Amino acid sequence: MEHRDPFGIGLVQTEPSSDREENIARAVHLAAEAAKGGAKVICLPELFGSRYFCQREDARSFDLAERIPGPSTEALSKVARERRVTVIVPVFERRAAGLFHNSCAVIGPDGEIVGVYRKMHIPDDPGYYEKYYFTPGDLGYRSFPTPFGRVGTLICWDQWYPEAARLSALDGASVLFYPSAIGWHPSEKAERGEEQRDAWITVQRGHAISNGVYVAAVNRAGLESAPGSEGIEFWGSTFLVDPFGVVVARAQTLGEEIVVGEIDPARIEEVRRSWPFLRDRRIDSYRDIDRRFIDER
Amino acid sequence: MEHRDPFGIGLVQTEPSSDREENIARAVHLAAEAAKGGAKVICLPELFGSRYFCQREDARSFDLAERIPGPSTEALSKVARERRVTVIVPVFERRAAGLFHNSCAVIGPDGEIVGVYRKMHIPDDPGYYEKYYFTPGDLGYRSFPTPFGRVGTLICWDQWYPEAARLSALDGASVLFYPSAIGWHPSEKAERGEEQRDAWITVQRGHAISNGVYVAAVNRAGLESAPGSEGIEFWGSTFLVDPFGVVVARAQTLGEEIVVGEIDPARIEEVRRSWPFLRDRRIDSYRDIDRRFIDER
Repeated sequence: MEHRDPFGIGLVQTEPSSDREENIARAVHLAAEAAKGGAKVICLPELFGSRYFCQREDARSFDLAERIPGPSTEALSKVARERRVTVIVPVFERRAAGLFHNSCAVIGPDGEIVGVYRKMHIPDDPGYYEKYYFTPGDLGYRSFPTPFGRVGTLICWDQWYPEAARLSALDGASVLFYPSAIGWHPSEKAERGEEQRDAWITVQRGHAISNGVYVAAVNRAGLESAPGSEGIEFWGSTFLVDPFGVVVARAQTLGEEIVVGEIDPARIEEVRRSWPFLRDRRIDSYRDIDRRFIDER
Repeated sequence: MEHRDPFGIGLVQTEPSSDREENIARAVHLAAEAAKGGAKVICLPELFGSRYFCQREDARSFDLAERIPGPSTEALSKVARERRVTVIVPVFERRAAGLFHNSCAVIGPDGEIVGVYRKMHIPDDPGYYEKYYFTPGDLGYRSFPTPFGRVGTLICWDQWYPEAARLSALDGASVLFYPSAIGWHPSEKAERGEEQRDAWITVQRGHAISNGVYVAAVNRAGLESAPGSEGIEFWGSTFLVDPFGVVVARAQTLGEEIVVGEIDPARIEEVRRSWPFLRDRRIDSYRDIDRRFIDER
């Protein structure tokens, strides 16, 4: 039997301020703390370097974008190298004038950029005007090597799409990381909040189960109010589930917190032997999945 | 706004005996009861006409197969016509000598066969030797018309495959029905039972959420012991969840029971407007889903 050792991962839930230097410095500190706690792969929340500027459409917010490599990856690269860990670093990526992505860079233990993922599914809803800012990704669904095996990276809205999870898992990932920025509209929270958060957790547990992979969701926390709006209360709730969807670690607070959990390749082996879903996929029968809708019947 | 009225569905959880006539008569009775209770679309469990013969490989069990149309569909067709309801009738289908399927027929309110679905994903595990009995389906993923809108039918092992749910939903289904036969190995139940049943519920709730459809799982119940084995304790737990994965009805017993729930097209409209996942699918990017695994990297 192929044997790999269990390893720790660190899910860093943060509460970003409007001060980019502070956010990056805080992320560096927390990544180092996670490494001290045993984490070998560490993930930060979506767009952790700034406030969630997508609450409104404002061309000045494009000034927040940076290159890969750039200030965020350079700062985290240093801690990756010092602590010999892999860090998943979400970046508002400037690719060219008028061409921006919601991305994450995977930085290896030598401080090098192992790869980049660009968010494929872009939402657009009141308070989440992402289609204005982000061109949909064009790098596909990927997993990236670490000294402990391959890990997949997807970002927030991707988490509602089983195709994205499937394709990252088929690319050999043992864990899917979902840096996220999802929260409540305060006026909806009392009536709808619990079912919204539950749906978010459930759909991702479903991806873990149907693919036999660990799933780690790393959300931001805190209330971010934009002038003239009620703002968004990011719901934290960072969690890790195992390949059968069992919750193995979760945030205990609604604020900044490091969640450390363990990835055990032997558990993946055990679950996939007992529940061999990959064996029985009907790959001859899925071609209509690239259709928008089946209109004629 | 396109307007359709809510309608009731009936999920008939049964405990089949080894007497086929009795199983069919009981199903007819329970379908009529569900109709009296307001159900307009009624679903029976997988292979409800017999014991779960797949616990071992025995060529004599092919004698249990029948044609479509055949005794099962004819008996349920009568109640469909009398009560003006749609009935989903699982059948061990004989197609030709040496060619059998695990199927279900959808019978409309005039008693006619509206369509047939043949289980696409076939399991094979100790105690569930289905690959011996059933040729994988060749009719694809389908939805079928009823007077209350289209419904999709999938069968048991299909429920672990997001591709199957997606394709049935894209074919216009407002509800996905999963006739099932899943249970515990009694020796595993204490240690693993709860997490197994929870994974089964969770993955199906995930399909409801990612597709914005109702999902109805209709399982058999009861312990079926085969000579020389500990048997299988079918776990019942028949349930209906709404398009955001919220449980709206579920079985209260581990035995024969009719679960009646409501399908509200306005709820589908509301959920899909708030969470417009179908809008943002990246249909240009899913083509590798028809690969078995991505080996080269």
